Amino acid sequence: MADEIERLPLLRLTAESRSSIKDIVVREFPLTVILNNQEVVTLLCSPANLEYLALGFLFSEGLLKNKEEIKKIIVDDKRGVVRVETRESRELAQDVLFKRLITSGCGRGASFYNAADAAGQKVESKLQISAGAIFALVSDFQHRSQVYKTTGGVHSAALCDREKILVFSEDIGRHNAIDKIFGECLLQDIATKNRIIITSGRISSEILLKVAKRNIPLLISKSAPTNLGVKLASELGVTLVGFARGRRMNVYTHDRRVVTGGK
Amino acid sequence: MADEIERLPLLRLTAESRSSIKDIVVREFPLTVILNNQEVVTLLCSPANLEYLALGFLFSEGLLKNKEEIKKIIVDDKRGVVRVETRESRELAQDVLFKRLITSGCGRGASFYNAADAAGQKVESKLQISAGAIFALVSDFQHRSQVYKTTGGVHSAALCDREKILVFSEDIGRHNAIDKIFGECLLQDIATKNRIIITSGRISSEILLKVAKRNIPLLISKSAPTNLGVKLASELGVTLVGFARGRRMNVYTHDRRVVTGGK
Repeated sequence: MADEIERLPLLRLTAESRSSIKDIVVREFPLTVILNNQEVVTLLCSPANLEYLALGFLFSEGLLKNKEEIKKIIVDDKRGVVRVETRESRELAQDVLFKRLITSGCGRGASFYNAADAAGQKVESKLQISAGAIFALVSDFQHRSQVYKTTGGVHSAALCDREKILVFSEDIGRHNAIDKIFGECLLQDIATKNRIIITSGRISSEILLKVAKRNIPLLISKSAPTNLGVKLASELGVTLVGFARGRRMNVYTHDRRVVTGGK
Repeated sequence: MADEIERLPLLRLTAESRSSIKDIVVREFPLTVILNNQEVVTLLCSPANLEYLALGFLFSEGLLKNKEEIKKIIVDDKRGVVRVETRESRELAQDVLFKRLITSGCGRGASFYNAADAAGQKVESKLQISAGAIFALVSDFQHRSQVYKTTGGVHSAALCDREKILVFSEDIGRHNAIDKIFGECLLQDIATKNRIIITSGRISSEILLKVAKRNIPLLISKSAPTNLGVKLASELGVTLVGFARGRRMNVYTHDRRVVTGGK
């Protein structure tokens, strides 16, 4: 965690007083991801688990299909570069890369408004969980959000089963936090199917799609969803929970997976 | 505002109860920006002031230099497209567009880690404002954040002078909210020099650079800055205020512009 924050001098002002203090801010680090010698993207991220972020990003964007494909990963954290080489050094056509980069931009995700792209992605899972178990997971999630507590500047994400948090990550970007989870799952052979993602961030269509691609049947957010997030959750078979705070939550879609009661 | 939200059925769950209600969520709308018949980006945004967003985005990305350049703007809000034509229909080289899109991605901004790009951008301004006046502006800003209050899902931004809010905008994206302001300023001939931006969102390097490019000497956020945001503010001559809440704030850089006392 030490690398993820920095202590800076600043002036604390109220209407009446003025004091010079030192306080911590979260670090922002530019990470360039290179796949088979082609620069794919520069992500602004928290400088931890760069390898997981690079892999998770490539995985989420469909540029990496599975672990077996990976031949070599070289992390240069001084220069902020992760190089990934695959066994078959397929050349990404410039226009494929170009299109991908449009959709991975600020408005990343344009492509999936195309029904053909979303089709075949429907999440099938018999997972069921009690409301009480969700409140317990969210409470644990809250307690683990360290960097946020000290700096107010990061998002958290977690992969869980019905009982506990399995993988936890933090990043200044809500996309990055989730990509770090999926990168870790890919590299460490941790299954995502039938499991649960919790995020501190908003559920936009892009987040929903990223999670549905990993066959996650239940997505829980402490924040709000957008209407497109809800629409895609409904179409793709994902149970979407928003505003999970304290002992209360909103279930927007496929509520059969959440049963009343529980611990 | 009606278009920016949608009413949806959902299940409100506590550990003991389960009730079907209707509640509102914020809308997320894909807007494609086309410049001289070239598709530049698809932004996911709140569906209001699409024209301002498209212009502000092009302006911030350096693809549009001034108002005089604009020959025609066609807004097709059914299909989610804004077409901008400039007088000189300069062809954007594919690789320029390609590079730009990398830097406008999730990690948009890679380019400005290049000192040459940041140089010459330094903001010169004799603006001074009292702490009390900042608290008054932030309080007014709070009161105007309508959509956030009802859905918890948007960011707000405002352009101010020392006395009042001049332009206000809301969007699901913190970049978009600021781009909408700059688009409106461009089209309506509203000066940004020597003025103030308030944002509800985090100050990352990208936000800082966007604001510095418009010659804004004072950037105020209700949230946290990142270390790169602070570093760039210091280098580019921007006074950066974070955690402006109630009657308290942190001034990270160039604190000469904020004086004690005031209304």
